[in-house]
Amino acid sequence: MKNIFFKKRNDIKINDILKSLNLRKQKKNIRVYDIKELDKAQKNDISFLHSPKYLGLIKKTNSNLIITNKKFLKSIPKTKKIIEVPNVLLSVSVLTNLFYPESLNENFDSNVGHVKENKFIKLKLGKNVLVGKNVKIGKNCSLGHNTIIEQNVVIGDNCNIGCNVVIKNTIIGNNTNILDGAVIGKKGFGFFPGVKNIRYPHIGAVIIGDNVEIGCNNTIDRGSLSNTIIGDGTFLDNQIHIAHNVKIGKNCIITGQVGFAGSSSIGNNVMIGGQAGISGHLKIGDNVKIGGGSGVVKDIPSNSKVMGYPAKNIRIFLKENKSNV
Amino acid sequence: MKNIFFKKRNDIKINDILKSLNLRKQKKNIRVYDIKELDKAQKNDISFLHSPKYLGLIKKTNSNLIITNKKFLKSIPKTKKIIEVPNVLLSVSVLTNLFYPESLNENFDSNVGHVKENKFIKLKLGKNVLVGKNVKIGKNCSLGHNTIIEQNVVIGDNCNIGCNVVIKNTIIGNNTNILDGAVIGKKGFGFFPGVKNIRYPHIGAVIIGDNVEIGCNNTIDRGSLSNTIIGDGTFLDNQIHIAHNVKIGKNCIITGQVGFAGSSSIGNNVMIGGQAGISGHLKIGDNVKIGGGSGVVKDIPSNSKVMGYPAKNIRIFLKENKSNV
Amino acid sequence: MKNIFFKKRNDIKINDILKSLNLRKQKKNIRVYDIKELDKAQKNDISFLHSPKYLGLIKKTNSNLIITNKKFLKSIPKTKKIIEVPNVLLSVSVLTNLFYPESLNENFDSNVGHVKENKFIKLKLGKNVLVGKNVKIGKNCSLGHNTIIEQNVVIGDNCNIGCNVVIKNTIIGNNTNILDGAVIGKKGFGFFPGVKNIRYPHIGAVIIGDNVEIGCNNTIDRGSLSNTIIGDGTFLDNQIHIAHNVKIGKNCIITGQVGFAGSSSIGNNVMIGGQAGISGHLKIGDNVKIGGGSGVVKDIPSNSKVMGYPAKNIRIFLKENKSNV
Repeated sequence: MKNIFFKKRNDIKINDILKSLNLRKQKKNIRVYDIKELDKAQKNDISFLHSPKYLGLIKKTNSNLIITNKKFLKSIPKTKKIIEVPNVLLSVSVLTNLFYPESLNENFDSNVGHVKENKFIKLKLGKNVLVGKNVKIGKNCSLGHNTIIEQNVVIGDNCNIGCNVVIKNTIIGNNTNILDGAVIGKKGFGFFPGVKNIRYPHIGAVIIGDNVEIGCNNTIDRGSLSNTIIGDGTFLDNQIHIAHNVKIGKNCIITGQVGFAGSSSIGNNVMIGGQAGISGHLKIGDNVKIGGGSGVVKDIPSNSKVMGYPAKNIRIFLKENKSNV
Repeated sequence: MKNIFFKKRNDIKINDILKSLNLRKQKKNIRVYDIKELDKAQKNDISFLHSPKYLGLIKKTNSNLIITNKKFLKSIPKTKKIIEVPNVLLSVSVLTNLFYPESLNENFDSNVGHVKENKFIKLKLGKNVLVGKNVKIGKNCSLGHNTIIEQNVVIGDNCNIGCNVVIKNTIIGNNTNILDGAVIGKKGFGFFPGVKNIRYPHIGAVIIGDNVEIGCNNTIDRGSLSNTIIGDGTFLDNQIHIAHNVKIGKNCIITGQVGFAGSSSIGNNVMIGGQAGISGHLKIGDNVKIGGGSGVVKDIPSNSKVMGYPAKNIRIFLKENKSNV
Repeated sequence: MKNIFFKKRNDIKINDILKSLNLRKQKKNIRVYDIKELDKAQKNDISFLHSPKYLGLIKKTNSNLIITNKKFLKSIPKTKKIIEVPNVLLSVSVLTNLFYPESLNENFDSNVGHVKENKFIKLKLGKNVLVGKNVKIGKNCSLGHNTIIEQNVVIGDNCNIGCNVVIKNTIIGNNTNILDGAVIGKKGFGFFPGVKNIRYPHIGAVIIGDNVEIGCNNTIDRGSLSNTIIGDGTFLDNQIHIAHNVKIGKNCIITGQVGFAGSSSIGNNVMIGGQAGISGHLKIGDNVKIGGGSGVVKDIPSNSKVMGYPAKNIRIFLKENKSNV
């Protein structure tokens, strides 16, 4: 899928990459097309390996050019060309910025303006709505007062967007509602801590499915390299925070004030009670029920019910707390 | 009390009801006035019984027409007419929508507009304020920049509403402050989960008393059939979420990021520490103190102090955790 | 440092103070310059002692005029003049209001207006931005759509302020970003509970350093007598709440939905996981790591790692929960 939100440079060659990383040039200066995760990369894209979690993918990736560190040198098939660096993610960050020069620009869209209702089919428009260039809006939609839709955002049919909403870098399906005060598509909270924190580029989008509801004052950050995804039929209550790269499945019900740390993946038909928190990089299966206030810190298999901080099987939780529940 | 936010049809007869529920017509097609909860219903209103919690009320209700399921058939006094359905709340939802045809319309109010300060007595008006039709505002009030007050909202005397606030379906007393970014009166997060989530109609209001303070970025949802209520003198800090049908008493102090699930009832003079969560359908007594971060999952009697997740008597909590508090 | 946000009366004499507190006048009606905390007060300022926590400071303070209650009478050096009152903080509140007559006025700034980009150096201005009187903005800044900057606010160079932001009573350094929907500088949630809650005056500011990032929909309250402070290089994720008088050090990383109760002090290089809560009046040292969802209820020494509710040493937490983490 083409990145419609961030312009990619199409003139990057291997020596541009090596130069960015302060490495020695090579003789044959071949073109590199894009930077992608292992499972998404094509043969002319550069990809990377930084964690044992992805050792399975390194065998399957189409990419022939892999950035990694000393630790994983031997895990990479000999057919691949390897670029060894001390800090893989920092190098990925540098290269993402090389391919996508605007990826660190997080300013508001200053090219938005007032549009007329008849610019789109049967659009109902509030007062003081600002719409960016090249925004696509399907038929029968409404945009509430003071709402801002930044450039290139795509909204399907029959969507209702509330008041005081900010949407950027987002693609929305049909019949989806986004309620007042939600902020969708800003960059994730990713950076390299240090003497001066270095911001991580975020070229991913937020992809919201059909028949979704996003509650008031929610914040949903866009992905870094991949996308943040909210599946069809999923309903989110108010004041929910969804960090970058989180994938939520279909028909989930997420209650107020729940928070998701970055890169976790949630299955279908998952129900999560109010104020629960899901740590980063976890895998929650299908049909999981997570009790209110739980703190989930490890993977949860499908069809489980958990509760507690840290979250555990709900029967064990109830048994341990039987005098107080 | 008349519903000033949602128009009621006054031509509904029993056979309209039976038809909506796919049930057989009856010969005598009497008029039914409204749909109400057991304790609010008058003799010509339809009401419903779906939980053993309400077995006490079924004996006292004035309603002569009760929707219930097989399980409760025998609990209903023989003087009442019964409509038996498989899923009581789903039928109530269908009928609410029958009586109140706009109850599922959650769009922003497109008839708001700029008003002049002299439309109301000693009103102080920010820039870009939008006020709907038939809004009532008492004397000496202020409405901050970019704030939206939707149709039929009632605001008492000496109220200060901040900036970027959205208020709909709400009645506010005197001397009450609502701070920046609060969203008050949207429909609750109630629906019937299923292949496609069915939205529950919300015809209730938010009723806010005198001398109340509602903090920044709070979200307070309106009730489904009954109202969400915030009592006189109650102060809410920032980022609090109050779900539909919650009743909070007088002179309560609720600290930042607390969340209330639907239909819980909180007494007077209750103090709740930051980030605590109150599950749904609970009864919290008067003068209760709930420690910060607590997860309350059962009723709390008056004059208790609780803390913990799940919340327990605070002395027990402190004893169990004495090395860490 | 002069208070640029609240006008101070310069004509207050000791007998004005005594009269405000319903105490008997004295013969020599000397001038009192200001009301300050013990460590900030100069010799002609009035200060106060209300807690054993500050017994160390009472020996060092420059102030010669101390309000206290019966309990601390003997702890105060004999060189000081003492004003004895039943409720110290209530008296401090009365006197703050005497010195700063607008300290309880929390209305929005009605003197804001549209400005031209060329009023400041290389300013990038969104639509519908409102800027108050005497606001200072450095070079190369941007202010997003619908954002409100109230009177006297100071913003340094290269700062990016997002959309729908409200900033009042705040001083911001250089290279700092404030994201969409943040509300910064409103009064803290401080008051005296009682038959009618009495609001505590808040004449402090919010001081934000250089290279800071404040996330979407954050709420940061200003201080009561002292300031709320966010140190250089500190990054805050979305939906964080920071209460009045909190001091956060340099280069801290605070993840989504964390909450800080009033008057706590956080060291440098502290990392706090999502949804953790920090109780009031605590001292968290440098280089502390606090796990997500933790509830911190006591001081944490430097270089510690804690997790849990209540928070404890992380090794103990992990050991106690080893089957669930």
